[in-house]
Order: sequence, then C-alpha cells, then structure tokens
Amino acid sequence: MRYKCTVAYDGTNFHGFQVQNDLRCVQSELENALLIITKKKTKVYGAGRTDAGVHAYGQVFHFDFEVDMKDAFMKNAINCRLPKDIHIVKVEHVGEDFHARFSAKSKTYEYLMDFSEVDPLKVNYRWYYKYPLDASKLKEAAKVFIGTHDFKAITKNHKLENTIRTIYSIDFCEVDSLLKIRFKGNGFLHNQVRIMVAMMVEVARGKITISDLENVLNSLDRKRAPKTAPANGLYLVDIQY
Amino acid sequence: MRYKCTVAYDGTNFHGFQVQNDLRCVQSELENALLIITKKKTKVYGAGRTDAGVHAYGQVFHFDFEVDMKDAFMKNAINCRLPKDIHIVKVEHVGEDFHARFSAKSKTYEYLMDFSEVDPLKVNYRWYYKYPLDASKLKEAAKVFIGTHDFKAITKNHKLENTIRTIYSIDFCEVDSLLKIRFKGNGFLHNQVRIMVAMMVEVARGKITISDLENVLNSLDRKRAPKTAPANGLYLVDIQY
Repeated sequence: MRYKCTVAYDGTNFHGFQVQNDLRCVQSELENALLIITKKKTKVYGAGRTDAGVHAYGQVFHFDFEVDMKDAFMKNAINCRLPKDIHIVKVEHVGEDFHARFSAKSKTYEYLMDFSEVDPLKVNYRWYYKYPLDASKLKEAAKVFIGTHDFKAITKNHKLENTIRTIYSIDFCEVDSLLKIRFKGNGFLHNQVRIMVAMMVEVARGKITISDLENVLNSLDRKRAPKTAPANGLYLVDIQY
Repeated sequence: MRYKCTVAYDGTNFHGFQVQNDLRCVQSELENALLIITKKKTKVYGAGRTDAGVHAYGQVFHFDFEVDMKDAFMKNAINCRLPKDIHIVKVEHVGEDFHARFSAKSKTYEYLMDFSEVDPLKVNYRWYYKYPLDASKLKEAAKVFIGTHDFKAITKNHKLENTIRTIYSIDFCEVDSLLKIRFKGNGFLHNQVRIMVAMMVEVARGKITISDLENVLNSLDRKRAPKTAPANGLYLVDIQY
C-alpha cells in the first residue's frame, strides 16, 4: 500500500524538512512515528525540502506499508506519535505510480510580510518590515519573474544542472498591515522564493530598478543577487498533483 | 525619573515573568537590557507574575532611572536590547507614587480555546479542545465566579493570607472555531484563571453540575478543584490603573 500524506508544521524549531546529520528535522520525526506503527524502518519520501524556519501547511510525502489501514485511522496513528509542532492534515491511499516528489505538477508558496509594530508572539511567522513599500512597484517587479526563466542567479544551489523553472503566477493579498505574496510555479530552486522576495523589496524601496532586476536575472550570476528574505515568513501551502 | 512600561511577550520559552534561580524569565531579560542603558543594576517591578507558557500583551512594570529620556527613545533603546520574544509596547513617565503592582486597580486576562483541528503553528497560543462544549453552560458556570469570593479553593498558592478577590466580569467572544473568555477582576490568585476555565469546561461537558462548582468554591479546599487549564491559552491583556 502506498500512503500519501499532507503535513503541516511549524518550522521554527526544525533544521528544515530533510534529514541532515543529527539535527532535528521533520522527516526524521515522521520516520520515528512510522517506525512505531509499521514496526520497521519506513522511509518517508517528501515532495521537496524546506529550509530551517520555513513553515508548511501543505507539505506532501508518501511511504509504503503492506498493511491496509483506513485513512482516518492511519492519520490518527501518526498524529499520536508526533511532536506538537507537526500535524498530519490528510492521509490518502494512492497507486504505486504516485511519487510525492516526481508526480508533483506545481507548488504554491506564500510569503508573509507585516508592516506594523512587532508583535513578539508572531515574530517567527512573518517578516516584520520597518519601511513602507510601494505595492505597485512590488507588483511590477514580480512580473519580471513570471514565465519560464533560467533562475541560476536566484538560487543558493547554483551548481544544479537544470535551473530553468516556470512561475505561473505571483499574487498579492493585502489585509491591514499584512501583505501575503503567493507564488505558484512548476518548481522552485533552493532559496528561490526568498531571494525573489528580497529583490522585489529592493525594487519597491527604490534601491534597484526593474531593469537592474532584469539584468541580475539574465546574468545567471548568483553573486549579483546576494540578499535572501528571512525563512520565517515563508510557507509551503500546497502541492498540486 | 520613574518609567512605566507596557510589555508584550511570547511566554512559550520563558519560565514565567519573575526571576527564579537561573531559569530564563522575562524580568531578567528586561533587567539585562536596562543594565546596558542605565549602566547599573536596575530593578524591574512587575505588576504581577505570569507562569511559564503564559503570554502577555499588556504586562506592566516600572523602573527608576535618574536620566530623563524621551518615551519613544527609551522604548527603542530597550527594544534594541531585548530578545525577539519580548517587545516593549509603550513607555510613559509617571510620578514617584506610581507602582506597577500596588497602583493596579484591575487586570484583564483572556483565555483562548480552539475547537477545530490542531494547527501545529498555533499550538503554543491556544488550548485545542477536542470535544464540543455547550456555550450556555459555560456562561452559566462563569456566573458563579462573578462577584467577591474567597477563592482559596481556586488557586495553587493556598497558603496566601488573603484569598478574597472580586471578579467584575467574564465575557465570551466566539468567532468560528475560536472561543475567547475575557476575565476582569481586581486581582487574580496564582493559577486562578486557569482553574476557573478548567471548572467551567467540566460543567459544560456535563462532568460536574453548577451546584458541584458552587460547593467546590465554598469548600475553600484546593483538593476539590484539581484541574488546571493549559498555560499556553492564557494571555495577560491589560492592567488598569
């Protein structure tokens, strides 16, 4: 049986999703929980990694287990064995050809900015930004990224062979002092969303122009785009299959 | 000069407000920040303690410093030196007769419950409760506490000499799956709000009756009211002077 699971987590106290040495990560917490249920080492295949501090409402993973358990029962069984900063939202049976990573058609991330005074209960969940930003300039900057581009300049992992990605849309939602920027694309490179946010903010603050931004993107040179927006404003919200 | 400060904090990673041995607490973080500004040991007088895990939007403290600094400047000076889970909301000059604790006329606490599915990004900020509650029964139970009573049965610290307190109001605000219970009183004993919430919930679930609740209150016996609602749902929201 192959099980597809949708999982939410608070990234604050994790060194990201993927196993790294002995650091606390989401994947090993999931595998520890599954070890108890399946009574054997069960590998978790995530749809993709998220960095330390990045949150998720819609991360997806799959695993195999020969016992056919009801979805709701499996969900409950895993949740009982997880720490409180991870929660399984949904469990579904899927065919053997489903793969959390390779079957993904597109992904949606959200980046949350807040322009009000700091609330210490929310600092881990948004980027507090002191200066007002010109929303129309943010939107203009976003347009540069939409479409298919080689994002080699806009990633931490510039050694990757294929750095071409397609961004379908970048939408903005403003409520009071909050700004939510929603990115949908066929995939995102390491740090890509956070670097795009930082660059859009630079444009909106008038530090660089739209044509500077285009030049950086076209340069394929990571050194040209050094800034990265903080991890704690980023949410993996949905993966489309 | 006496400075009155209003402070917000995320109680998750603190062992409460007040200094206790070498544990991380809000008061010592504030005193560490003031040490840098005033260049000497400066005592922080809080309006009252909050327990480990309890949050605050409107905790108040005062301190003395002979230099007359502008409110906004002092606020900024302290905030620059605080960890990100504490934030000074307001600084005011007050007279020498002001005392954060003894001048307080009343206090407002809020308790937040959530009856929806667990969101792992919010588990530190509310009490997730699995079972539906009859709101009219909650309100009926709350009425027993309103007024002046000896709350000796409804506190952790039953050795206190004066356990008589007056509760002015207990209000309910429901939005979707959230229930906020707002308590206003002339003062609250240690754990009093959390024990009252637990007892109201017991009534609403039909585990005890209103007259059981009255009997416990009148018994002045702590052993009769053993439950305490989780700390992470509680907020000190305002102190009235």
